[in-house]
Formats: sequence, C-alpha cells, structure tokens
Amino acid sequence: MQGVTFIGADTGRWSVQRITAWCGATLPVVSAVERIEGAGDQPFGLPAAPATGRAWALHGFRSNERYTHAGEKRQLVAAQEGLDRVGATCAALIPIRKSAAWWALAQDERREIFEAQSRHIAIGLEYLPAIARRLYHCRDLGEPFDFLTWFEFAPTEAPRFDGLLARLRSSPEWAWVERDVEVRLSSAAVRSPAGG
Amino acid sequence: MQGVTFIGADTGRWSVQRITAWCGATLPVVSAVERIEGAGDQPFGLPAAPATGRAWALHGFRSNERYTHAGEKRQLVAAQEGLDRVGATCAALIPIRKSAAWWALAQDERREIFEAQSRHIAIGLEYLPAIARRLYHCRDLGEPFDFLTWFEFAPTEAPRFDGLLARLRSSPEWAWVERDVEVRLSSAAVRSPAGG
Repeated sequence: MQGVTFIGADTGRWSVQRITAWCGATLPVVSAVERIEGAGDQPFGLPAAPATGRAWALHGFRSNERYTHAGEKRQLVAAQEGLDRVGATCAALIPIRKSAAWWALAQDERREIFEAQSRHIAIGLEYLPAIARRLYHCRDLGEPFDFLTWFEFAPTEAPRFDGLLARLRSSPEWAWVERDVEVRLSSAAVRSPAGG
Repeated sequence: MQGVTFIGADTGRWSVQRITAWCGATLPVVSAVERIEGAGDQPFGLPAAPATGRAWALHGFRSNERYTHAGEKRQLVAAQEGLDRVGATCAALIPIRKSAAWWALAQDERREIFEAQSRHIAIGLEYLPAIARRLYHCRDLGEPFDFLTWFEFAPTEAPRFDGLLARLRSSPEWAWVERDVEVRLSSAAVRSPAGG
C-alpha cells in the first residue's frame, strides 16, 4: 500500500491560506497541514512529532488509474513533473466526496461523464507540467471523503490554478459531487531539490 | 467501508475440503474458514470468539464495479441471487494476485483483456443464479492478494463450478495472474433462511 496521512494542526510544513467549502460540510479551521507519505510498517505515515492542536487527519492511498486510457496515460506521463519542485511553494489539498448515485453507476457510465462529457483528464493535461498533481483514494477506507487530490505549483500559477478548478467545478461531473473542500496552502521555506 | 475478514483456523462455519495453489505460494493448511462481514466500528468484522489454531486472516472490502458496463450490470443484477441460500452448502474462497505489469496497464487496456479477450463477465453470467459470487478488493490494503472472490452453490453444481474456473484460468486474463489459491469448502449444517 502507498498510503498517506494529511494532518491539519497548529503547525506543519504547509501554512493554510484559506479553507473554502464549495459543497457540503467544511473542515475545521487549522493553521497548517502536513502531508506524510507512508512506507513499510507505517502504511499511512506518522508525523515525526505529535502535531500540536491537531484538528483532523485524513488518510488515503495511491492506486492504479480507474478511468485513464492508454493514449491519455502516455500524454500525462510525458508532460507531468513530480512533487517537491523548488519554487513550487503553493499547494492545495482538495478532498472530494461523490454521491451514492455516482458509485452505483457502471464503469462506462462513470467514464462517459468523467471524460466524454467533462474532459477531466484533457483539462488537467492543459496545466501540465506547471501544476503537479497526485491523487489519493479513500472511499474504500470508510473515510469521510472519496478522494484527496494534492496540487503543487509556483505562486505565479495561482490564477491559472483557480481557472482549472473553475472549469472542473462547472463540468457535468460536479453534479455528482456532494462534498468539496479546498484547502489552499503555501510554504515559505525555500526547499532544496531531492538529494541537494 | 464494507469490509470482510476470512479466518483460516481449526474451527469455523465452513469445513475445508482442499486447498490448491494453482499459481504462486499456497496458503497454510487449515481445517475451517470463517467469513466475517464488517459493520460499524469493526469495518473488517471480528470473530465471535477467538479462532483456535488460527493460521491466517485475509481482509478485503466490497467496492464499486471497476470494469462492468451498464448493459452487463443490468444482466447480472437480473440474474444473480444472494449468499446464504438454503442448499448452497458448497463454497469456495479464491484469493488472487495479479502482476505489477497488470496494474501498470491503463483502464481501457485492462478492460480489453478482462472482457473483450477473456469474457470474464459473460462467462460468469452463464452460471447465474446457481453459482452466487461476491468480490472483495484488497490490493489497496497492502494485503498479500489483490482480490478475494467468494462463491456459494449446491453440491450438484460442483462440476459446473469446476468448469467455470477452468474456463477463466485458460483465458488471456490469467497470464497476468501470479498467485491463485483455491480453498474449497463445505457446510454440513442445514441453514435456515434469513429470519426463519
């Protein structure tokens, strides 16, 4: 399992700029968010130290693609960049829950809404590599959300990121979303590249 | 979460007839298997009493369909019957793990192999309602298998069940299977219908 834990607390690597509930209940206000990838005996990851003022913890896992076709996957892999880039000091955590009616649809019906009607993959592709993205699943863990999507980008990309979200939220797919919370974050620290 | 735990031990509702490893490592030999559906605070279920001689426990969860199209789903729903039928005193637990190469395929490539090439859904449909089936997922839990499939049928259906398994195992899909263990079970007890 490639699990993750997001902890909302008083302190953490990412400072909260704002939390907006677009649909359904919001998350409790916190000052910071920490993203902790799991490994080995700690599949969801554990904080290095207990988070002070911890208000919430959300768990998820990386998994295989559920809708992406081969040609789309090739385009994504060719265009995307990883997380933790120097300069990518803005981030967003967007937990989403879809309706029971969505999950009762067959695979082809969900794919039709997701891509043929809403162009979810094609729209995301337009913003690569500037806006890096990692999807975690959590519905099957009995969590309060179905997905946790994590984005990282440079501050200059923030207006384009707002545009990306607006396009997705106005798509037919979002009629099936019943909870959508946007946690916008920034990291003041200048980070070193991996191994630097 | 709709979780489940299968416990292999000295005692349990289902007596083990045989355990066959068709591919990859087998499971330790046990005398009985218990299937415990989770609920509420115990998402994977807990045994009513600690199982004696417990040799293994496998966890999984029910989830949305990953490959079934709408027309296929309508046929399955119309034809299938539930578990726990009077007379369905034979069962099988078949844990499967697929290769990393399978999981690296895109959604349309997996569907192509699963149904267009292997007719997995269409073959299963031929055996409904006699052979009842419930699929649990477990790859995303970090379990040793990717799926746990549970079957229940009358003893007179055992030869047809063998035929169903032989057809699936000879399909192109099975080239992607790297572990496949078949646990065949019987329940001597005459069970009452629900509420009876």
